[in-house]
Amino acid sequence: MATINPHHSQSDDELAIRELVYRWLEATKVGDYEKVLRLMADDVVFMVPGREPFGKEAFASQSRQLKDARVEGKSDIKEIEVVGDLAWMRNRLEVEITPSNGQPMTRSGYTLTILRKLPDGNWVIARDANLVS
Amino acid sequence: MATINPHHSQSDDELAIRELVYRWLEATKVGDYEKVLRLMADDVVFMVPGREPFGKEAFASQSRQLKDARVEGKSDIKEIEVVGDLAWMRNRLEVEITPSNGQPMTRSGYTLTILRKLPDGNWVIARDANLVS
Repeated sequence: MATINPHHSQSDDELAIRELVYRWLEATKVGDYEKVLRLMADDVVFMVPGREPFGKEAFASQSRQLKDARVEGKSDIKEIEVVGDLAWMRNRLEVEITPSNGQPMTRSGYTLTILRKLPDGNWVIARDANLVS
Repeated sequence: MATINPHHSQSDDELAIRELVYRWLEATKVGDYEKVLRLMADDVVFMVPGREPFGKEAFASQSRQLKDARVEGKSDIKEIEVVGDLAWMRNRLEVEITPSNGQPMTRSGYTLTILRKLPDGNWVIARDANLVS
């Protein structure tokens, strides 16, 4: 299995997925949610504790509410496995959210993500279970 | 994508994965945790909110603590996609836990699961993010 470790030579797809995570966090940090939306599949499904799964439109509308906050995330990718045009990733996230008029809050936890390679060669997030609490 | 719907003819692998979920819930109901352990990969990783990921040994020891409780789960599999010897599944679980000397509690939520087909042809759970709360 393509678990990430220092002795493992990463494939182009693994590197592209790492790049996707980096671009996601960078775009989130600067509040460029249009860019974030392009990093997910149109039929993406997000799962978080305590609510029903939601898709791209709900993600976009939540992001607009976060527009004035600063959201800074750090990721520690634990595993990536690529099989053809499909991949899964296990990641540990630490997220610091600073509301425009408030104190920063830090949240951390794991995510399990399904990714898909589009016909244009770009990887996007297809399903995401987020245990950050 | 091999999303489950009434008009989609399921592959043998999809049926085997549905059967795995059924066997998991049945074995859990009767407290046969040895059987449950055989339905997961040796390197399985379970993720739940609010704690570090854990593996097969921790699962076994938790199960022993639940030995006298009755744990009855119902599953509603939302999606399965199989690619070669790898698959992912999105499931909604409703679990009723009745302690030996207490009232039943019901918990529900979604899971995102990575499954692997072993060389012997059996599917096992490899990674599981559990948002049941």
